[in-house]
Amino acid sequence: MARVSKPIEDRERLSPPQRRALILDAANRCFARDPDCSLRDIADEAGVSRQLVQLYFPGGGVGPVANVLFDEFVTQAPWLLADLPEGIRSTPDQTRARVEVIVNRGLDWAEATPGAWIFGPGRDLAGSGIGQRWEETQQAIAAMISSYPPFGLDDSPLTRTVIYAELRALEVLIHAWRTGHISREDCEAAAVLRFTSLFATTLPALTN
Amino acid sequence: MARVSKPIEDRERLSPPQRRALILDAANRCFARDPDCSLRDIADEAGVSRQLVQLYFPGGGVGPVANVLFDEFVTQAPWLLADLPEGIRSTPDQTRARVEVIVNRGLDWAEATPGAWIFGPGRDLAGSGIGQRWEETQQAIAAMISSYPPFGLDDSPLTRTVIYAELRALEVLIHAWRTGHISREDCEAAAVLRFTSLFATTLPALTN
Repeated sequence: MARVSKPIEDRERLSPPQRRALILDAANRCFARDPDCSLRDIADEAGVSRQLVQLYFPGGGVGPVANVLFDEFVTQAPWLLADLPEGIRSTPDQTRARVEVIVNRGLDWAEATPGAWIFGPGRDLAGSGIGQRWEETQQAIAAMISSYPPFGLDDSPLTRTVIYAELRALEVLIHAWRTGHISREDCEAAAVLRFTSLFATTLPALTN
Repeated sequence: MARVSKPIEDRERLSPPQRRALILDAANRCFARDPDCSLRDIADEAGVSRQLVQLYFPGGGVGPVANVLFDEFVTQAPWLLADLPEGIRSTPDQTRARVEVIVNRGLDWAEATPGAWIFGPGRDLAGSGIGQRWEETQQAIAAMISSYPPFGLDDSPLTRTVIYAELRALEVLIHAWRTGHISREDCEAAAVLRFTSLFATTLPALTN
């Protein structure tokens, strides 16, 4: 991936929030290339010193930077569920229409940002501590879906586990798409079918 | 977990295949406790020297021992699919009946052996190199299911990816059961519903 950071003289005129955003952008690109990357890799990518990265993201190592990126991902998640077509769980067709909207938003996001590394296999690498944070992130999203009132789900450990399982399956689909093993069209179709089955068949059968 | 290895004097009378099996049993227990365990941990658990473990599993580190355990897991997988009730994909009910048999066999196996660690989060730890081997193992099983003639599936990268995604979801369910977050009954029900949807709905819709 080409270095896109600005020349030094421009960066020195950046405000602190702009510098922070610059570092986060660089970190996203670094994690996308190598989830086991170092703080120095991120500093080099941003064209700043390692000390400056640590000033903005204190605590040692890449963990604090990764945490902010995961937090941003979780922050975006409710937006995926906003203003959906009415009628989830009413009929399978209505469920499918809502699922299509959610899946499309998610895949558009994955396509538009380097943040899709969050769905990569890198989270399995222990070095950066990303694995555990990834798991917490997916658990948080499962809890959000499970307790989202319009879905009318029975929010229980079982419901959360089954949704979390589906998110893990989704991660495989997105990763296969981002690495060129399947097309976006197939990724989308598979995700829509899977989530429709989950909401229209599996969850009602499990909780009734 | 209690140490179950035999006293030294007994072990010295073991044949080489028996010693090898003793070490593999010990390794299964060690990986179940700590997927990032060392060769010394396995040797201590088996009550033998580290050199003896390396003699039986040469190549360095715990990788060679883990590889054999993964190979055994893959070897058992075709048995999961043997002698199934006829009629998969004929009707959803027939599909479900076959899926129930497969899921039951798998969960019985997970309950009876310490090998269920293969479904644990430990595969996410980079230290032992288990993560990659786990992924290869699941890919091999996905390929086996995808190309298993009685299932009559369209064996393609898409089919394999969707089955692999389902295996990842199954891993979440089994791990949630083994760690006491959901009951075996719920794990079984969720797995049966999910695989039935996969075979009866998702895969036919994706490939037709």
